[in-house]
Amino acid sequence: MQARRGFASDNSATVHPSVLEAIVAANRGHAFGYGHDEYTREVQERVAAEFGAGARALFVFNGSGANVLCLRAACRPWQAVICAATSHINVDECGAAEALAGIKLLSTPTPDGKLTPGLVEGLIARVGDEHAVQPGVVSLTQATELGTVYTADETREISALAHERGMLVHLDGARLANAAAALDVPLSALTADAGVDIVSFGGTKNGLLGAEAVIVLNETLAEGFEYLRKQTLQLASKMRFLAAQFDALMRDQLWRVNATSANSTAARLAAAVDGAPGLRITRPVQTNAVFATLPAAAGAALHERFDFYPWDESIGELRWMCSWDTTEDDVDVFAAAIRDVLRAD
Amino acid sequence: MQARRGFASDNSATVHPSVLEAIVAANRGHAFGYGHDEYTREVQERVAAEFGAGARALFVFNGSGANVLCLRAACRPWQAVICAATSHINVDECGAAEALAGIKLLSTPTPDGKLTPGLVEGLIARVGDEHAVQPGVVSLTQATELGTVYTADETREISALAHERGMLVHLDGARLANAAAALDVPLSALTADAGVDIVSFGGTKNGLLGAEAVIVLNETLAEGFEYLRKQTLQLASKMRFLAAQFDALMRDQLWRVNATSANSTAARLAAAVDGAPGLRITRPVQTNAVFATLPAAAGAALHERFDFYPWDESIGELRWMCSWDTTEDDVDVFAAAIRDVLRAD
Amino acid sequence: MQARRGFASDNSATVHPSVLEAIVAANRGHAFGYGHDEYTREVQERVAAEFGAGARALFVFNGSGANVLCLRAACRPWQAVICAATSHINVDECGAAEALAGIKLLSTPTPDGKLTPGLVEGLIARVGDEHAVQPGVVSLTQATELGTVYTADETREISALAHERGMLVHLDGARLANAAAALDVPLSALTADAGVDIVSFGGTKNGLLGAEAVIVLNETLAEGFEYLRKQTLQLASKMRFLAAQFDALMRDQLWRVNATSANSTAARLAAAVDGAPGLRITRPVQTNAVFATLPAAAGAALHERFDFYPWDESIGELRWMCSWDTTEDDVDVFAAAIRDVLRAD
Amino acid sequence: MQARRGFASDNSATVHPSVLEAIVAANRGHAFGYGHDEYTREVQERVAAEFGAGARALFVFNGSGANVLCLRAACRPWQAVICAATSHINVDECGAAEALAGIKLLSTPTPDGKLTPGLVEGLIARVGDEHAVQPGVVSLTQATELGTVYTADETREISALAHERGMLVHLDGARLANAAAALDVPLSALTADAGVDIVSFGGTKNGLLGAEAVIVLNETLAEGFEYLRKQTLQLASKMRFLAAQFDALMRDQLWRVNATSANSTAARLAAAVDGAPGLRITRPVQTNAVFATLPAAAGAALHERFDFYPWDESIGELRWMCSWDTTEDDVDVFAAAIRDVLRAD
Repeated sequence: MQARRGFASDNSATVHPSVLEAIVAANRGHAFGYGHDEYTREVQERVAAEFGAGARALFVFNGSGANVLCLRAACRPWQAVICAATSHINVDECGAAEALAGIKLLSTPTPDGKLTPGLVEGLIARVGDEHAVQPGVVSLTQATELGTVYTADETREISALAHERGMLVHLDGARLANAAAALDVPLSALTADAGVDIVSFGGTKNGLLGAEAVIVLNETLAEGFEYLRKQTLQLASKMRFLAAQFDALMRDQLWRVNATSANSTAARLAAAVDGAPGLRITRPVQTNAVFATLPAAAGAALHERFDFYPWDESIGELRWMCSWDTTEDDVDVFAAAIRDVLRAD
Repeated sequence: MQARRGFASDNSATVHPSVLEAIVAANRGHAFGYGHDEYTREVQERVAAEFGAGARALFVFNGSGANVLCLRAACRPWQAVICAATSHINVDECGAAEALAGIKLLSTPTPDGKLTPGLVEGLIARVGDEHAVQPGVVSLTQATELGTVYTADETREISALAHERGMLVHLDGARLANAAAALDVPLSALTADAGVDIVSFGGTKNGLLGAEAVIVLNETLAEGFEYLRKQTLQLASKMRFLAAQFDALMRDQLWRVNATSANSTAARLAAAVDGAPGLRITRPVQTNAVFATLPAAAGAALHERFDFYPWDESIGELRWMCSWDTTEDDVDVFAAAIRDVLRAD
Repeated sequence: MQARRGFASDNSATVHPSVLEAIVAANRGHAFGYGHDEYTREVQERVAAEFGAGARALFVFNGSGANVLCLRAACRPWQAVICAATSHINVDECGAAEALAGIKLLSTPTPDGKLTPGLVEGLIARVGDEHAVQPGVVSLTQATELGTVYTADETREISALAHERGMLVHLDGARLANAAAALDVPLSALTADAGVDIVSFGGTKNGLLGAEAVIVLNETLAEGFEYLRKQTLQLASKMRFLAAQFDALMRDQLWRVNATSANSTAARLAAAVDGAPGLRITRPVQTNAVFATLPAAAGAALHERFDFYPWDESIGELRWMCSWDTTEDDVDVFAAAIRDVLRAD
Repeated sequence: MQARRGFASDNSATVHPSVLEAIVAANRGHAFGYGHDEYTREVQERVAAEFGAGARALFVFNGSGANVLCLRAACRPWQAVICAATSHINVDECGAAEALAGIKLLSTPTPDGKLTPGLVEGLIARVGDEHAVQPGVVSLTQATELGTVYTADETREISALAHERGMLVHLDGARLANAAAALDVPLSALTADAGVDIVSFGGTKNGLLGAEAVIVLNETLAEGFEYLRKQTLQLASKMRFLAAQFDALMRDQLWRVNATSANSTAARLAAAVDGAPGLRITRPVQTNAVFATLPAAAGAALHERFDFYPWDESIGELRWMCSWDTTEDDVDVFAAAIRDVLRAD
């Protein structure tokens, strides 16, 4: 059987060989569970260091877990979270924020998946009114679910507003690496240096087998964090194997190498099909996602040959995700197929 | 550096080589995320099959996640869970059942970690009284946190009582393999055939890197289960790598091989130190745990050389866990050390 | 001190004298607590009877309590509630639905506070997708927070859609009496006969001291309801005094008398000021609320003399609520004052 | 029909006439809802003053509501509440603490319904262990569910221990008035002066129609309290009628008058039946409850003529509660009946 190749999601991709090697290498002798081994501690510190002095890192299983954990730490029971309508916490976590953490999300439509100071301001309402939840956190997704990025300045502006209004800033960084690669800045530039208080730092979509890190930048959020991680079902017993994955990811900035590759194949894909008759690229291609509309029949024909997901079915919009392991060849074959189905249309 | 060896926990152990191989083998080409690949579906079905016709299996990250997920599926908001005071859900999950699922636990002390029909009956109180939570589920741990096992008959008796009273039965089987190996019966004998409705089937403590399966035996619990798994933060995106672990674990009953090995090294350890002056084995050694008291000084001296955890510090009780990778040599060296420190005492 | 009169809210009003008399009359001898007295049972049955055969009524403390209780009964953990953006559950209960019940609300802007089949349809999305909460309930407010009403037909249409899609219908009837009075129909016409499954039936805003009733119309929701009421902190110990209030409210349809009076004073107010230069009535006056914009200075001048709340401050919109105890005199004095401040502007 | 008299519960009793009068008196003109009227503010301050400088009072609907609200304010998500096994929060609130607040209760059997420093100490375990919930609050019931009282010194000792261990102290004072009356001390002596941090101060069981007050003594708990009250479904819209009840209760220390009367009728009852052949008083009669065992047939015969509840059915123990409105006549008739049924036995 031939190995399947596709553009469905960056979590359809393989695990990077160095990550597997690190897992295998960590499989030696006994180690205390739950991260109480020196190896995990050291890797956690190394990850944290990328986010600046005072940062703490804790490994968890998945992105939804990281997000819910961050929000549980950041919110008191009467506080709500401001987010984009398209944000993962709002539409892709089966209501976990509400069901497990009891947190109301105050969401707003956005043109491009990005909050702005104006949009945030518009959701800060009825402060001091006991009948209304009080906005407590702004949650940004970086890169967004639409593949767009917040610049460091844009992030900083929102953080400043949030802090001024007594709120905290969470960054859902499932694809933070893609954003940092796209902007060619260190991870800290988009987080600690931009006023972010707590980060869900993704690994799984960037070549890991399955591991994410929560980065606590604001020390007032550190209280009780270990309890919260355990209670939120995110404490791995054989933690060294999560640590090993991050060990590989941080070594020689593999995270940047992977993310850069995913981004550039997406750019290549966009360039290859842009202007094809009947196809319209619908979002700025800033990271590893390409969104495009094409005629229904063409889309259907393409779907018979390649894996990907529809995005906005009402307008025939499709999403093509590139991964760390997407090759230029993959892209060229796919782009040719796209042009094919458009011609046949 | 020499590889560390110890008796701290079965989750301090390594990953079985076949499991790692399976992971590596699964790392080929793209695969739909979240278990929507054929490979995962096939492995899930294979795992389920071990539990009898009609069983469904869903892979999750860890044992606490499996337990909370099972209880969320089995309880309506006014229902409580009957469990042993020593049960993992009661004392080792940082209050997750209460905090995330809103479920009250009705716990009872037990002589040996095991519920009995009498103990369960004693907790079924105030049925129909609107001021009191209503017992909805009995949760058994198999093997128990004290290393003891429920026979199939014992399980069946409790299930019969529970069902007669309109309740369901959950089995926390983080070490179900050890129990099945100890009793030399199939997994179904201790679960579906014994009236259990839903199972947390452990893998991580038995040679996996990190994966558990929830086994839904009672089809009335299947409704909405996929949503619950996602919402409970237990849906892995790169699911194939959880499936691969179970693929290896089920092949040629590796689960039984591993569990049998762990159990027999524990028996060997118990035999080797039983009768040593000053040492008392405090619990029946039925699976892979040995509990013993020894003089404080001896315990401390031993602890300087080997990893393990205290159990009941008030009486100087220690817990020594054997794992799938514990060797006879490990045991012999450890037993000799125990006799050493006792002599020195 | 002169008694204060105002247009702030229908819960600023007094208790109807008959209601106080009923309370006083009920204060005789001992009675079992928590509604286990025959008097309460009889009144509950009488209230239920207004909603049709098979209805059950349970008294609770307040409207938020009634709403959260209804939604807890109607939703499984993965289900969400569709509602208007302006609905009380969404913006006026301090996030109780999310915080206490773990329920995500899927809200939509509306022109007039009313959901329509089209708006509901637009929120039924991703059915069967495990990453998304599943719409489980449509919650209507009757009369709406904007004073508008759903006709029986409009309600029936939405219920039919909801049921067709496997959903249930909740009606937040804090002002159901006002709607039934406005439409001149029995309570059942807007509830049981219109396909509603469960109702929060308001009393406090309609002349009671403090009592609401939950009306369970769909018997599948009755399971465990008494436990849910207790657990949701809505079980009064001295229940007879809640029952007494409803006894008075139902006798000779006092609820309709009160609501009709409130509605007609609002109509009188609207008629009296409509067309005044600088004033615009912004919503159809269908029940007991009048919404209007007037110049900021005029509004401020008016506010110095009368109690009322701003509604949409961005456009200078004010809300004037009439109550069961608002008199024609009150209205005439107020209307004259409005014309005064407008002239002075 | 003759008015029913009984010994079922102090919430079976009537409302004190002064309380009804105060309600009627408050029913004059309009008043801002939700406590934003000056009258409520003034009464709240007056209630608070009884508990010492810096105390804040907030009125709520019922005792379970007060308790859950207090615990939500006092606990972070990883914290548990130490309480007696018999405590109302543990066994009489249908799991509300767990279901609505997500809080695990760590309960312990007690000889007399009272925690002691030793019992509390025994439940402070695994501090700093991320796998275990962390004890955050000690909750005392005053008077206890068994009618016993904590002296000021006993309370102070437990508070000192709790604070020393970084914990807070909640007092479920549904019958605090009875305790203060029994000990002949001010309310502050058993609360603020004894180190208590937050109090559920009962009114309903002591002659009110239905109102309780939460007293916040530790200002660190005041943050967000209004939001919590609303979100916990405990914010009354027509608040002035809750305030009116407390106005009457505090005036001339009606609370003490009522409680003293209830206590002394209980003492009279105990004295009247103590020593009767076949009857054994099983608990110290310190407030308004008498617990006694008597032969099953005698108990049944008595139950045919009077309302009361069984307590521990396994030993034929009954509970007889006296109320503020229990008369000496009531007691004498009842005591005679008890002696009757015992003779007949």
